[in-house]
Amino acid sequence: MAGNPFSGKDARPHVEGDFAREELALAYRNVALPLEALAYDVTPVGLHYTLSHFDVLRLDEGGFRLTVSGRVARPLALALADIRRLPAHTLRVTMECAGNGRGLMVPRYPSMPWLYEGVSTAEWTGAPLRHVLEEAGLERDAVDIAFLGADRGFDRGVEHDYGRSLTPADALSDDVLLAYAMNGAPLLPQHGFPLRLVVPGWFGMASVKWLTRIEALDRAFDGFQQAVGYHYRKFAGDPGVPITHAKVKSLIAPPGIPDWYTRRRLVERGTVALAGRAWSGAGTAIARVEVAVDGVWRDAVVARQAQRFTWQAWHYGWEATPGDHELACRATDARGATQPLEPDWNTNGMGNNAVHRIQVTVR
Amino acid sequence: MAGNPFSGKDARPHVEGDFAREELALAYRNVALPLEALAYDVTPVGLHYTLSHFDVLRLDEGGFRLTVSGRVARPLALALADIRRLPAHTLRVTMECAGNGRGLMVPRYPSMPWLYEGVSTAEWTGAPLRHVLEEAGLERDAVDIAFLGADRGFDRGVEHDYGRSLTPADALSDDVLLAYAMNGAPLLPQHGFPLRLVVPGWFGMASVKWLTRIEALDRAFDGFQQAVGYHYRKFAGDPGVPITHAKVKSLIAPPGIPDWYTRRRLVERGTVALAGRAWSGAGTAIARVEVAVDGVWRDAVVARQAQRFTWQAWHYGWEATPGDHELACRATDARGATQPLEPDWNTNGMGNNAVHRIQVTVR
Repeated sequence: MAGNPFSGKDARPHVEGDFAREELALAYRNVALPLEALAYDVTPVGLHYTLSHFDVLRLDEGGFRLTVSGRVARPLALALADIRRLPAHTLRVTMECAGNGRGLMVPRYPSMPWLYEGVSTAEWTGAPLRHVLEEAGLERDAVDIAFLGADRGFDRGVEHDYGRSLTPADALSDDVLLAYAMNGAPLLPQHGFPLRLVVPGWFGMASVKWLTRIEALDRAFDGFQQAVGYHYRKFAGDPGVPITHAKVKSLIAPPGIPDWYTRRRLVERGTVALAGRAWSGAGTAIARVEVAVDGVWRDAVVARQAQRFTWQAWHYGWEATPGDHELACRATDARGATQPLEPDWNTNGMGNNAVHRIQVTVR
Repeated sequence: MAGNPFSGKDARPHVEGDFAREELALAYRNVALPLEALAYDVTPVGLHYTLSHFDVLRLDEGGFRLTVSGRVARPLALALADIRRLPAHTLRVTMECAGNGRGLMVPRYPSMPWLYEGVSTAEWTGAPLRHVLEEAGLERDAVDIAFLGADRGFDRGVEHDYGRSLTPADALSDDVLLAYAMNGAPLLPQHGFPLRLVVPGWFGMASVKWLTRIEALDRAFDGFQQAVGYHYRKFAGDPGVPITHAKVKSLIAPPGIPDWYTRRRLVERGTVALAGRAWSGAGTAIARVEVAVDGVWRDAVVARQAQRFTWQAWHYGWEATPGDHELACRATDARGATQPLEPDWNTNGMGNNAVHRIQVTVR
């Protein structure tokens, strides 16, 4: 690396084929859902995906304060106990990383090279954000609310605390939580202990971890992860479209048993109960899941949505015959949005919801 | 893949440079320790490394039985409650994957391409294995004890349940546990719920997860992971040396803040408290840790070993001056074993304990 290794402001050039050591190291730093864990309605502790831009912080609950400042009538500095005293709300939320599927785009932007594993479901408990915003009293000229984490680092030459924003209308929704518990226990460090934002129905980048500052702004938040990162862009220089809600998507829990290295699956002949999960953004329910065996699509049975922001189980009885087969699944949500057969390419590899395909051998 | 994809009995050819999608997918399947989590004496739940050869199983505690059979006087079939009734023992154990560092060997065997992250520390609670072996009564001709998990799959064309063995002398040690709890809670699925073996001082492959069968044998166990996998081999066809205990090793918790993609660190000038962990195999304590700044080695301060099988903290005050620097650390154990500067190459990329180096920029 020549010169200051932190000043490279240009986007990294796209690549194809094998993965760089930097991409591999990002895969290690973050937890991924092994697809057999799609079997759980709520992902077990430690298997819920993580995407931490900078370090996994070790914060002290005693010294912790959440400040609310800027265009508010009453600036606040809240201890965790203050937030725990507010009415608590628990939501079962399926969360997906906006970059999930990036590693399958061709050519590929060098970043976290998710294949399929950047999605999970957890039960988050916390105080609805709106209680805190109402206590602070947003001024009339507050047009954007910034949420800043304690985690700091560089991206494309820009030093910043991780931060994202929501409009006042989105921030005042009942569903946005200041979450201090996950699956009934205090947040783990890697999920933002002691406090994080949880924004159901959005891709995961909105759910700021290690949340320490809320700033009401009279202008659009210009933080790097809001103004530069997390856009759909079709070409270099494209101003792009900001990324918000998750997209319709589904995954198959691989049947049978694996080969250690290739992860190809061996399945016994006969009736195989294929199963998986499907979800969409903004709490939209899934209306249909189709399964393809060797390219022939058939309807699967879709379970009802247990809660508004939660993935839905699907299953399909497959009469497996000996030989090599390709399985695929495709979801359509209640608004009619469906998954494409191939990735919808964009410069930074965001929001890839192309159908999931797996290779199996039946004996 | 031509023909039966599960019949490829030959070792995969070695590679260099970038990482194949199969290697990346293995990195995703398994949890890795982000090096900033070296700060914790006991690794937080969900950050302890995992290496699961096959699927992460979902076993039911109710139907669970551990059978003890073969060359024993009294074959057993124990429910989890039976094992919980035995005297419980808790050990704080640093566990490392035998393949940790494989991704840094040149050329590299295509398998789980760990860089540095395949090591963690947990508190395991369970019944000493010897109580169960004594209850079963090993016959005089029992020369090897096989431990078999419920997880099944293929490796290099061989279908098998994951299994490993210990000699009766090793198996009857007080320190080998039938563990049902980790950090005070029931095992998570990815750590072998409801029961696993924990063999302190050995590389992690000995600590069989989802343990369901113990077989006392009058001959050496010939399971794939014992007879073929997990050997140090210098060339193809080398019968090799079986892998047992972990090796002396140390890691640095990276100082400062990271760049998202390169993970290079930015550190402020002045006194920097460098810290990390060091450990060795077979419960051997660490006698010395040295830190190198730009190749000049100095002694660090090493904390005493809290428990016999636990890593030790070390720290070193570094007067950081502006510019680019390389930091490295090297441990020596109480038996005089020390880390090499370069990997000790072997065909399957096992036991790489070369010194850890990180690049930092001071401003």
